[in-house]
Amino acid sequence: MSIEKLLEENKQKYEDELKEFLSIPSVSARSEHKEDMARCADWLKGKLGDLGMKAEVISTKGHPVVYAELIDAGKSAPTVLVYGHYDVQPVEPLDEWESPPFEASVRGGRMYARGTADDKGQVHIHMKALEAYREAKGTPPVNLKFLFEGEEEVGSVNLEPFIRDNADRLACDVTVVSDTPMLAEDLPSICVGLRGMIYTEVRLAGPRQDLHSGQYGGGVVNPANALAEILAQLKDENGRVTVPGFYDAVKDPSPAEKKAYAEIPMTEEHFREEAGVPAIGDGEVGVHFIERIWARPTLDVNGLLSGYTGEGAKTIIPAKSMAKISMRLVPEQDPNAIREAFEGYVRSLKPEGVEMEIDFYASGLPWAVDPAGPVFKAAASAVEGVFKREPLFIREGGSIPIVPMIEQILETPLLLLGFALPGCNLHSPNEWMSLDLYHKGIDIITRLYDELANELGE
Amino acid sequence: MSIEKLLEENKQKYEDELKEFLSIPSVSARSEHKEDMARCADWLKGKLGDLGMKAEVISTKGHPVVYAELIDAGKSAPTVLVYGHYDVQPVEPLDEWESPPFEASVRGGRMYARGTADDKGQVHIHMKALEAYREAKGTPPVNLKFLFEGEEEVGSVNLEPFIRDNADRLACDVTVVSDTPMLAEDLPSICVGLRGMIYTEVRLAGPRQDLHSGQYGGGVVNPANALAEILAQLKDENGRVTVPGFYDAVKDPSPAEKKAYAEIPMTEEHFREEAGVPAIGDGEVGVHFIERIWARPTLDVNGLLSGYTGEGAKTIIPAKSMAKISMRLVPEQDPNAIREAFEGYVRSLKPEGVEMEIDFYASGLPWAVDPAGPVFKAAASAVEGVFKREPLFIREGGSIPIVPMIEQILETPLLLLGFALPGCNLHSPNEWMSLDLYHKGIDIITRLYDELANELGE
Repeated sequence: MSIEKLLEENKQKYEDELKEFLSIPSVSARSEHKEDMARCADWLKGKLGDLGMKAEVISTKGHPVVYAELIDAGKSAPTVLVYGHYDVQPVEPLDEWESPPFEASVRGGRMYARGTADDKGQVHIHMKALEAYREAKGTPPVNLKFLFEGEEEVGSVNLEPFIRDNADRLACDVTVVSDTPMLAEDLPSICVGLRGMIYTEVRLAGPRQDLHSGQYGGGVVNPANALAEILAQLKDENGRVTVPGFYDAVKDPSPAEKKAYAEIPMTEEHFREEAGVPAIGDGEVGVHFIERIWARPTLDVNGLLSGYTGEGAKTIIPAKSMAKISMRLVPEQDPNAIREAFEGYVRSLKPEGVEMEIDFYASGLPWAVDPAGPVFKAAASAVEGVFKREPLFIREGGSIPIVPMIEQILETPLLLLGFALPGCNLHSPNEWMSLDLYHKGIDIITRLYDELANELGE
Repeated sequence: MSIEKLLEENKQKYEDELKEFLSIPSVSARSEHKEDMARCADWLKGKLGDLGMKAEVISTKGHPVVYAELIDAGKSAPTVLVYGHYDVQPVEPLDEWESPPFEASVRGGRMYARGTADDKGQVHIHMKALEAYREAKGTPPVNLKFLFEGEEEVGSVNLEPFIRDNADRLACDVTVVSDTPMLAEDLPSICVGLRGMIYTEVRLAGPRQDLHSGQYGGGVVNPANALAEILAQLKDENGRVTVPGFYDAVKDPSPAEKKAYAEIPMTEEHFREEAGVPAIGDGEVGVHFIERIWARPTLDVNGLLSGYTGEGAKTIIPAKSMAKISMRLVPEQDPNAIREAFEGYVRSLKPEGVEMEIDFYASGLPWAVDPAGPVFKAAASAVEGVFKREPLFIREGGSIPIVPMIEQILETPLLLLGFALPGCNLHSPNEWMSLDLYHKGIDIITRLYDELANELGE
């Protein structure tokens, strides 16, 4: 049977298995899901074994890594390392989901569930591509190594030592990562840049406990007011982050890349609608919105909590307040240097009368690559073969800290070829994956084996 | 038996009954406690009936009023209306209570439970004073009317129409309200001023739902950042509220009162320790701390909520944000005018890209009185009789909106004679009442009957 026919006939089977994968609540951030994480890793190991791979679950200090190999293409064939992650973001607020986050539901050509796009659906594309290739054409012309981690959503803290310790085993000619969106359903794209990140939590403690706002108001520093005042000083009136030195190392995109941004067929109105916001705004004044979200650094408050947040009125001065704050970084900003500058600056804003604690939860380097050479040629051909049009080279505003890390340790090119879509509710309620792109992705990956063998083979 | 002896012998009995009163979770703000509120009103009616009063529970649009009369002193005797409230504040955060909020616990001469000080303990003082007087000396020389409401902690919304509709029935020569603290255990005081209040909630809505902070950061207005920026603009660098016209009507305390503040035997360090804060601060620069908390208006954030507030990191731009904000007002600030000015100002601070809703939950007039005339003479004598020292005339930073309201409708003097203490955790976990002051309070009220009969009787 031709692979095209086989892919067509197996669509329902692939989707059913994906639903099974998505039904395991592999939320890495929550300790109550520790067993689900282990269960998900075991599930993967079983399915990878079914594909003829030598698969194992490898313990780390946190959630396990799933690793599998199929080294049957011969010594002269190139080796492809596929990275993905089987952990997902928390699902709160639960009441905003239209169908349960761990019971995948298909509506209007989309599959809805936590992890459809980020990243279980994309991990599954690689698994089904290998299955289809073997069934239709036999052993792929590339050696395959699959590395699926369980801690991407909590900063991949144990992955770097794992990769360093296993660099020989993971040696490859190219790493493929599918964890990003295409530009639009009909605009195939390959991602050549990512923002880095620092994630931090600032806590203020004032009174020993909540105080009556009448008896003490005007007499003691209010940690909620103080927090708002600190946060308001993190950006200036032009939307620029005020942390000292924040922009010093920022490298502008090339004039060619800036020109490409302006030509990308996405209007501000389309972006506004997709984001579901009353008006576009924020970010630096006078910078094109595509550049702002892809190639400019930013600072966002991700969460706020203080005092009484229930129904009605409670007249207290809160004992404490908390903000979660993340910064997105671009080449060549150094997360460690920014982290130090942030901490020093925020501490300098603390008023007397409250105590301050700052925690850093995660950080990741920014990344950008010049899409030249055989790897990008192979990828473009595979994509064009399915979409019948050349892919655009785009950036992505999110952060995949492991991308620059893997690239540096393994010293091989890295290809970011993702199949999600903008507006697919990553990290939000009602996350979805286009089933059309899911199946196109499987097709593209089977073609990528041939194209890479062609471009990189001896 | 002398009343002194009787009060001494009945201490345990009074405390046991108070514990029973405190065990009813009469949280007016929470709809799940609606039945507890009714049960508490019935409990009061029963106990007031036992005191020989004609007692009834009167329905309102909200929680019921408990009203009782004992009109046995004769036509020439003065009539005293006692106001109190049997509802209490919510108890969250529950895990900060050292003993359960509705199981009163005595430790170190204090009774701990929600409502001990605010206001069930003080309501109970009046009930036990009448009981003791009748047992020891017979019918009191004043006619008594007790009015205990169940909505003080939610703004007394139904009390004003009740008092207007029942002004004849409630007619009196003086109203006594026990809902304030003394200055210290050994510093008896009578309260001659209260701050007014406006309580408001500001909500911002941005994206339809939480967005990925990488994909959208820099492209859309973040409602958490926007809220912080709005809140930070509500006060200037000197601690002054920036709402236009906020200070226009503020009436300074008299020079005599200002002098009294400076002479009050409470140091900043004592206040700092009692508040449990790292350092005294906030409020207007250059104003004495006693004046700041008693006689200057202020603005406090009472609660903040936005985005992800759980464990670890979640990289979102929150869909919405919320702040609860209260302002304390002083004579002659007009809550309605301030409310309008606040709303207009806050709306003017809203950036494009978010929508804003503002709710107002409660408001109350400020109040101040000149402590001259027979009522204050009688009260001072009753207090001095028990404490063996003259009471200080003080203000209180909190708000009891019904005080100016009752005074205006009934057109009679109002006496604020309270028995709580500063630091007694009003509205906070571990609220307590000094048992020494509770029993002194009962003694003082029995003496107040005689003193008022003496000063006001024909």
